[in-house]
Amino acid sequence: MRKIRMGMVGGGRGAFIGAVHRIAAAIDQQIELVCGAFSSTPEKSKLSGQDFFLPEERCYANYEEMILTEKTLPEGERMDFVAIVTPNHMHFAPAKMAIENGFHVLSDKPACFNTEQAEELEAIVAQSGLLYGLTHNYTGYPLVKQAKEMIADGKLGEIRKVIVEYPQGWLATKVEDDTEQKQAAWRTDPTKSGAAGCVGDIGTHAENLAEYITGLSIKELAADITAFVDGRLLDDDANILLRFDNGAKGILHASQIAVGDENNLNIRIYGEKGGLEWRQLEPNTMIVKWLEEPMQIYRTGMGYLGEAASNASRTPAGHPEGYLEAFANTYLNFISQIREFQKGNKEIKFEYPTIADGVRGMKFIDAVVGSSKNNAAWTAL
Amino acid sequence: MRKIRMGMVGGGRGAFIGAVHRIAAAIDQQIELVCGAFSSTPEKSKLSGQDFFLPEERCYANYEEMILTEKTLPEGERMDFVAIVTPNHMHFAPAKMAIENGFHVLSDKPACFNTEQAEELEAIVAQSGLLYGLTHNYTGYPLVKQAKEMIADGKLGEIRKVIVEYPQGWLATKVEDDTEQKQAAWRTDPTKSGAAGCVGDIGTHAENLAEYITGLSIKELAADITAFVDGRLLDDDANILLRFDNGAKGILHASQIAVGDENNLNIRIYGEKGGLEWRQLEPNTMIVKWLEEPMQIYRTGMGYLGEAASNASRTPAGHPEGYLEAFANTYLNFISQIREFQKGNKEIKFEYPTIADGVRGMKFIDAVVGSSKNNAAWTAL
Amino acid sequence: MRKIRMGMVGGGRGAFIGAVHRIAAAIDQQIELVCGAFSSTPEKSKLSGQDFFLPEERCYANYEEMILTEKTLPEGERMDFVAIVTPNHMHFAPAKMAIENGFHVLSDKPACFNTEQAEELEAIVAQSGLLYGLTHNYTGYPLVKQAKEMIADGKLGEIRKVIVEYPQGWLATKVEDDTEQKQAAWRTDPTKSGAAGCVGDIGTHAENLAEYITGLSIKELAADITAFVDGRLLDDDANILLRFDNGAKGILHASQIAVGDENNLNIRIYGEKGGLEWRQLEPNTMIVKWLEEPMQIYRTGMGYLGEAASNASRTPAGHPEGYLEAFANTYLNFISQIREFQKGNKEIKFEYPTIADGVRGMKFIDAVVGSSKNNAAWTAL
Amino acid sequence: MRKIRMGMVGGGRGAFIGAVHRIAAAIDQQIELVCGAFSSTPEKSKLSGQDFFLPEERCYANYEEMILTEKTLPEGERMDFVAIVTPNHMHFAPAKMAIENGFHVLSDKPACFNTEQAEELEAIVAQSGLLYGLTHNYTGYPLVKQAKEMIADGKLGEIRKVIVEYPQGWLATKVEDDTEQKQAAWRTDPTKSGAAGCVGDIGTHAENLAEYITGLSIKELAADITAFVDGRLLDDDANILLRFDNGAKGILHASQIAVGDENNLNIRIYGEKGGLEWRQLEPNTMIVKWLEEPMQIYRTGMGYLGEAASNASRTPAGHPEGYLEAFANTYLNFISQIREFQKGNKEIKFEYPTIADGVRGMKFIDAVVGSSKNNAAWTAL
Repeated sequence: MRKIRMGMVGGGRGAFIGAVHRIAAAIDQQIELVCGAFSSTPEKSKLSGQDFFLPEERCYANYEEMILTEKTLPEGERMDFVAIVTPNHMHFAPAKMAIENGFHVLSDKPACFNTEQAEELEAIVAQSGLLYGLTHNYTGYPLVKQAKEMIADGKLGEIRKVIVEYPQGWLATKVEDDTEQKQAAWRTDPTKSGAAGCVGDIGTHAENLAEYITGLSIKELAADITAFVDGRLLDDDANILLRFDNGAKGILHASQIAVGDENNLNIRIYGEKGGLEWRQLEPNTMIVKWLEEPMQIYRTGMGYLGEAASNASRTPAGHPEGYLEAFANTYLNFISQIREFQKGNKEIKFEYPTIADGVRGMKFIDAVVGSSKNNAAWTAL
Repeated sequence: MRKIRMGMVGGGRGAFIGAVHRIAAAIDQQIELVCGAFSSTPEKSKLSGQDFFLPEERCYANYEEMILTEKTLPEGERMDFVAIVTPNHMHFAPAKMAIENGFHVLSDKPACFNTEQAEELEAIVAQSGLLYGLTHNYTGYPLVKQAKEMIADGKLGEIRKVIVEYPQGWLATKVEDDTEQKQAAWRTDPTKSGAAGCVGDIGTHAENLAEYITGLSIKELAADITAFVDGRLLDDDANILLRFDNGAKGILHASQIAVGDENNLNIRIYGEKGGLEWRQLEPNTMIVKWLEEPMQIYRTGMGYLGEAASNASRTPAGHPEGYLEAFANTYLNFISQIREFQKGNKEIKFEYPTIADGVRGMKFIDAVVGSSKNNAAWTAL
Repeated sequence: MRKIRMGMVGGGRGAFIGAVHRIAAAIDQQIELVCGAFSSTPEKSKLSGQDFFLPEERCYANYEEMILTEKTLPEGERMDFVAIVTPNHMHFAPAKMAIENGFHVLSDKPACFNTEQAEELEAIVAQSGLLYGLTHNYTGYPLVKQAKEMIADGKLGEIRKVIVEYPQGWLATKVEDDTEQKQAAWRTDPTKSGAAGCVGDIGTHAENLAEYITGLSIKELAADITAFVDGRLLDDDANILLRFDNGAKGILHASQIAVGDENNLNIRIYGEKGGLEWRQLEPNTMIVKWLEEPMQIYRTGMGYLGEAASNASRTPAGHPEGYLEAFANTYLNFISQIREFQKGNKEIKFEYPTIADGVRGMKFIDAVVGSSKNNAAWTAL
Repeated sequence: MRKIRMGMVGGGRGAFIGAVHRIAAAIDQQIELVCGAFSSTPEKSKLSGQDFFLPEERCYANYEEMILTEKTLPEGERMDFVAIVTPNHMHFAPAKMAIENGFHVLSDKPACFNTEQAEELEAIVAQSGLLYGLTHNYTGYPLVKQAKEMIADGKLGEIRKVIVEYPQGWLATKVEDDTEQKQAAWRTDPTKSGAAGCVGDIGTHAENLAEYITGLSIKELAADITAFVDGRLLDDDANILLRFDNGAKGILHASQIAVGDENNLNIRIYGEKGGLEWRQLEPNTMIVKWLEEPMQIYRTGMGYLGEAASNASRTPAGHPEGYLEAFANTYLNFISQIREFQKGNKEIKFEYPTIADGVRGMKFIDAVVGSSKNNAAWTAL
């Protein structure tokens, strides 16, 4: 056995999510970063590569060069997969080219700039037989997996109500006007972010989390989205009514103007027999509720957890795991599946979000934007 | 000075809210229960009166008898006001008759069975010059008053977003079929509860709280209400999008099928400069949020609170006050205004919910039910 | 049946604990305040009596006059019991005189100024056959009673460790120098407070709570007490090691210089099979811990609670009860026992702290002060 | 620049803390594991090395072989430092040998089996001029560093009281009898753990944390330690009174029989002007308390934090960091200092626990065990 070799597109000096991906890839010591096209500026790409101790010849000027050159290297030396950590509008092209040249892809979300791209990519991936993963990283938390398992096992009974929230406050003022704030700049720019701002950036995480845990699909939604900050071109707030395919009802709201809120993704789910509540800010605790018995506090790392949650933690209970470990779980499952692939095994044995989740997310954005333009009319998803 | 004299309609043995009203009235030792028509069954009314140490002649067979007889007693002996603690469909008639016979009224909410009654009552009250209070008791909490004051003072800046929630779980199964469950029975019966179930019972509290704290009005709403429990005739769950008169957006959701939730009214408000969060289950704590500074924990009874909050607590910080004390604040303010009235002072010096809040609540119910029938179409309030 | 009649010693205008006692007595509408000697200044006593709507002739100049005069009134008109709410040094004399003149006594804690008085009072009470209650009010909380019941039932197994804390911060500076701060002044004055400051004022509550819930007795202790504020004559901080009669170990610490802490009495108890945790600041929640199963959240008012806890709450779950309701539970049980007494029934059917707890508290103060003078030597209790 | 090369002693298959060290070393991608003596069984050492993708020739049979062989390799190929992750009784010998052969050492805690060894090691380290780090990893949390900085800056005023707790419950039954429970077995074995059980394993973390944050030294202590579980040879519970060099008082308690507690290290500190509270289980939140102002909630990653805390986090606020990231901070600072060393710079520019902390910890164990044998007599540290 050897480490799985990763090439990276984007994520040069100063980027946020690129550094997160590299840590996530490093945590389990199963992945080696072997090359990258870290910036659209070739010189910056080289400098970034030095930070990561890469040889100069594997710090490429752009992703095209990286893919075509790596392809020529022998197996075991060339990269095994490409991690794409660019802004939204630059997800599709490198993903497409990587797949078409025989490389697996792990991409940041949302999968693409729009639904058309996502559906095209889905077809390409299907045709290739290669693996495509999407870092809907919040599904990597152990207790999120526990929640999914308990619901699948019927512990809560038929699900009736889902409330999923994602309030942030960092865009409560027009920070994108500050040239230092690159994270804010592209996220609020329709040419880079896509049809939605807040909805695409974090709303899709909320949508994905709700469908992942419950196993249900949002059938239709009624959305009221707003750009509260003067001069902002994309939504910074969204309030959405949900109807699920089993008849459950729900609410999804996301915001980037929720002053003082950090990254407060959370979900509450109520079934006929029980309920549960999980908050990303304190991710190692989940409250489970019952009709007649006291609420219970489920905690990461405890022996009573199911297999999925147990496999997703690295330390005993009371040694808090966080965002990076959850992110690492997505990486670990993805490259574990690559190992299967390399052994010739095509069956999916490890769970990670795929291009199907990516298409779903893009359709969610379309539905939300469409509904809101139509004064919150119910819109199918 | 003497104690203010209270007569009570409803609230006999086994009733929930009647007992709450009596405790709330007793806490500050300014009110004396002098008579009552505690039950529609005359004998039960008598027995209940014995529990409260009342003389037999002032335990009336019905509210009509109570009002007419008390009217004949000399001032200082006869009741000063009537507390109405019956189910919804029996609020209007005794309130109307009490006012028309010269008695102030403090009624449980919602004010009436429907909007027509509420508007008629509003006119009667206005004409009479008498006082009418409505126990939207959650506005009695000290930190709720603090929140209102801080927003009125502009501490949070222009309000952009309001999330108000009221999940309960006690009607998650069909408990109204159990003959012991009288509280459930009338609340789920359209002939007693009115046009709405959950929305009338607790949704109106959420609506009232949001408008009270923010000082804003809900301009229109889009509602999706549901009766999840088979065979239930009224809604037991409601998800509602809100638009306020200043352009703020919001969400109100209420539920009685949220398994394991007790009485979890809570509100989060975000302005341009700050935010706040208050939860009824831990009512002595309020989180205040700022753009750049650490969040703060405001606590009941502390010296840094404003006048409204300070006047509304009875113990030093760290001696938790609860639901009954908040309820008592509504009583105390109402009878303090009666004292003003009795001194001939008509100016409103004490704050308590009035028939205007009652009419507002009934219109809210109408709008929610109407919107939901119309597939969540935006409906003006 | 009639209301039980209360006379009060102390608690005039501006007093803290007197007002608390009056509210606690009022909440359940079973007690009527009929007379008082509210202040050592006769005129102030009269004015206070007016606030409580008492006839002038029953606002006495001092407790001696009150006791002797009330004794001459017919049964059913005269007071049934005396509530003593004066500073510590004035507990003994009125309690003794009341008992000796045939009145039951409910006294604020600590029972007396020193152990000698407490033991003398214990003898007097025993001889009289009358009822003496002590407001160790924190034992009145429903979940405290639940904890006691669960431990008595063996749910946690043999108890091994107890941690009881009582940090306050209000005396972190020399507030007693401010003439407005009467509460601070007498508590820090050895001629009024007794041999201890913090230890007597709040340490005794912690001791009482630990012994009450566990059913164990502190066998010996090692104490290190300190007066941190310059010029303060009594301790404002105490750190104490505990050994219980069953071999359990523990810690008790109390402080009045714990800046920013309000009134944070709390207790954690660990047995061989389980543990529990209760905090007075959020008194309606108790965490119960198990060897292998998830922690549970016990909540006031829920149907799964035992009889003691159920009887001690007035509202359904989710309607928070607080300090005043817990205090009222002590009152309610005490006067319920008076009703038994008045029916000729001497058997104790209702639970409330008695003079035995009072003697225990005084001995605790002696042991702590003695141990600390002896450099924290183990001292029997 | 290149990665810093790590050799590991201990930490083979099935070990807990070895895996933690490897993740901590991996997170920042600055360290490469190049060799190891992972087990006292040579074959097991080889197998473990395969798990980490090491060449067979660098999976050594024992630490002596590793040190002597690596020494012969050229700089840049040979390991730069040795990480020691064995049970306590095997810390000293490899540390001594590594230092004596020119390798820096990063050791798990406690530093040695007893004080004599620790003092000998201190002398050896001093003489060598090499770097020795000790993984008192809890000091690696961002908010722990923030607390230290605020106190050093005088924000809280002179410190008066410190309460540090470390309750765990995993040894509440005799799990060491289960042959699967290797972690429990050596920790409860005096020949492997040292003079103390709970006190050495976790009490030293609490001692280190308290002294680290406050900048104070424990001057003397009075300890009452217990082995609650029948047949256990070392303490599983400790209650300790503390006196600090500036006159502050404190409490340290640690337990491994606190049923249901996971790994609940926490600390509260009170000064003349303010206080603070931090809990390892929710490590990204710190409550800061003031005399007159509302409490504040400090959060990892926020812009208002000081330099030390800011440097110690990798993600924006709201992306929870945990135990592994804190542990990684100790690694990162240690190898950053190695980089300085390799540049010829002997000045300490990065903060990490050293052999001085190790000696301190061993003396703490001695003082606790000595005091407890002497019935909790005050014992100097």
